[in-house]
Amino acid sequence: MDKIPQLEIETRIAKLQKILVQQQLDGALLLWNSDIFYFTGTKQNSYLFVPQSGDPVLMVKRGLDRGIAESFVKDIVSIKSPKEIPSIIATHGITNLTKIGTELDVMPVNLYNFYGKIFDQIEFSDISPAIKQIRAVKSAYEVNIIRQALKIMDEAFSLVPSLLREGMTEIELAALFEAELRKRGYAGVCKMRAFNQSFFYGNVCSGKSGISPSFFDGPVGGTGVSLSDPQGAGWKIINKNEPIYIDYTCIYQGYTGDQTRMFCIGDLPEKLKKAYNDAVFIKNEAVKSMHPGVLAEEPHILALKLAEELGYKDNFMGYKNNQVKFLGHGLGLELDELPIVAKGIKTKIVTGMTFALEPKFVFPEGAIGIENSFVMTENGPECLSITAEDIIYIK
Amino acid sequence: MDKIPQLEIETRIAKLQKILVQQQLDGALLLWNSDIFYFTGTKQNSYLFVPQSGDPVLMVKRGLDRGIAESFVKDIVSIKSPKEIPSIIATHGITNLTKIGTELDVMPVNLYNFYGKIFDQIEFSDISPAIKQIRAVKSAYEVNIIRQALKIMDEAFSLVPSLLREGMTEIELAALFEAELRKRGYAGVCKMRAFNQSFFYGNVCSGKSGISPSFFDGPVGGTGVSLSDPQGAGWKIINKNEPIYIDYTCIYQGYTGDQTRMFCIGDLPEKLKKAYNDAVFIKNEAVKSMHPGVLAEEPHILALKLAEELGYKDNFMGYKNNQVKFLGHGLGLELDELPIVAKGIKTKIVTGMTFALEPKFVFPEGAIGIENSFVMTENGPECLSITAEDIIYIK
Repeated sequence: MDKIPQLEIETRIAKLQKILVQQQLDGALLLWNSDIFYFTGTKQNSYLFVPQSGDPVLMVKRGLDRGIAESFVKDIVSIKSPKEIPSIIATHGITNLTKIGTELDVMPVNLYNFYGKIFDQIEFSDISPAIKQIRAVKSAYEVNIIRQALKIMDEAFSLVPSLLREGMTEIELAALFEAELRKRGYAGVCKMRAFNQSFFYGNVCSGKSGISPSFFDGPVGGTGVSLSDPQGAGWKIINKNEPIYIDYTCIYQGYTGDQTRMFCIGDLPEKLKKAYNDAVFIKNEAVKSMHPGVLAEEPHILALKLAEELGYKDNFMGYKNNQVKFLGHGLGLELDELPIVAKGIKTKIVTGMTFALEPKFVFPEGAIGIENSFVMTENGPECLSITAEDIIYIK
Repeated sequence: MDKIPQLEIETRIAKLQKILVQQQLDGALLLWNSDIFYFTGTKQNSYLFVPQSGDPVLMVKRGLDRGIAESFVKDIVSIKSPKEIPSIIATHGITNLTKIGTELDVMPVNLYNFYGKIFDQIEFSDISPAIKQIRAVKSAYEVNIIRQALKIMDEAFSLVPSLLREGMTEIELAALFEAELRKRGYAGVCKMRAFNQSFFYGNVCSGKSGISPSFFDGPVGGTGVSLSDPQGAGWKIINKNEPIYIDYTCIYQGYTGDQTRMFCIGDLPEKLKKAYNDAVFIKNEAVKSMHPGVLAEEPHILALKLAEELGYKDNFMGYKNNQVKFLGHGLGLELDELPIVAKGIKTKIVTGMTFALEPKFVFPEGAIGIENSFVMTENGPECLSITAEDIIYIK
């Protein structure tokens, strides 16, 4: 399996250390899976300490041999309990700590109190905003992995006409579609950083299912197969002449591709065809308006204006009181990375940032829209999705 | 879709309120998805306040109509921001709060600080141990759902001989097997409460893949398809005459069934056949030793003793330095519920508790073992798994 190259790891650690210096932190204690993977290349059960200067120390509780084989971090040692962290890092010359950064956006209170006892007299500071910023800007290596994720998506989407038939349930189509992604290397859990948010593969909605909102903070919910997981494909039978909305992630080597395409058995009402063309228009206008340094709110403000002008005030990004307040989101090791493309967000979208743009409309008759994945380049957003954009009609 | 019955909801709320009285808490503010679903029957984006007495108030941020349709809680209201919680509950007569319980085992530090400002001058206490205890004891309604999950698993396991062929990859078999679970209603993300733990469907390991440890705290890891998700099925080709280990969850209506069965194309070495029989023997002895009120450590202590006597000291529940320290775990809305069946755990296993027992051995040649799901009854553990236990040989 592909290892994250040594130069990638060293560059990432160097970026973090630069911020540790700026923030006058003696080091960073990283515990969150996705961060440990990002900075080490391994996701064995471990704890990572990155000092302000010098080599990081990866302490592996379980899977030491795999950790050593998988990671280019030099100092990888065994640990039995996190209580040993201070003494282990001391043997690596890391002593006299007064203030360290950790991931307070995800660390539970009880665990924080536990680490407070281990690191007695040491002040913790939230390093997560800095980590999110570092992770938001992708290297060519990372962009290439996301490109591969979208290649897999393209293969799976191209098979939909052979999987889809009138009278099957949404969940049956979802099962077959997901299997196509999975056998090509869909790696597992779609990771999210926000509290309580989780996501399973993606969403198949047909016709009126599209109007169901969900816990998940996305424009289109879906009924899901049970009230315990009220989002995505449900038990509804797929009929002729209704929009079939397929919005999926592909997690490849940890990185997320995200794409939506529309299908239909038969034909769609003109209203929905027009809405789809308008969604593509809004996506294209948003892309045209973006350049390195654009504020993340600008494409959303433009899209809101266009959607309203086109008469979709109650339909854009959800139906009426269940609308969501963004046009896109960052993509990487987590589905909810920076930038958030949303009104009010002043983050600059710089070269190397990867993100999805997903203008969508929801009507009582169903959900319709498009989503592509992009990387910001010097010349503006480059589309990483390679699947044709037309609605696929199956006769 | 099936709603959680009104009596279930009322009984659960009453149990929580009894604990609020015991702990002298004015109420509980519940934010964690699985807890909100357990106590309300809906998982729309919401906040739940349960006062020490009187009706709970469910405040729905998104999906109000679905929340009202899905839940038997009487007071369900709209909310725009969690900042409104104190004023909303005040309009429901809930005032003069001094000490409230919340889920400090999962609530991130930053969110805790945010709620600390909203609930100025109010002390938070950790209600999660009580919630875990309540949730550990299942009603007949809940046990019946887990029974249905295991019925689905039985159907999927019975199809393995038709899916499996020599020369396919583990991930290909996993994709096909998962699709069989999914189309029968596998609901989505397999939920875990522990920090950083996540799980995707289950695990297909063939031959030497079985020795790979993983981040996940289970006896058998698997290589996974990438270093970002180093567990479960990988790219290894499935060969003749090696153990094919299939350990899967089935999430049905939110509840988890968990089961492991063994398959083989051709025949297995006598050593592995004997190990499998010994795993079944240990499982049976553990079951025989269990009765209502047994301490959760006892079956594990017995299993450790038997495994060592049988010569599996280095193989039981993982290989050498990657062994895990339990025999089983609770099953419910989360995969890591109580009871933890592990040495040192003095929890009493009482009637209604549901759990998996999974004696397994790991050798350089592969992983082998069995796992069934159980509910504790007055007469001891009742097996909820209905799949025959023999290794399935495919010629």
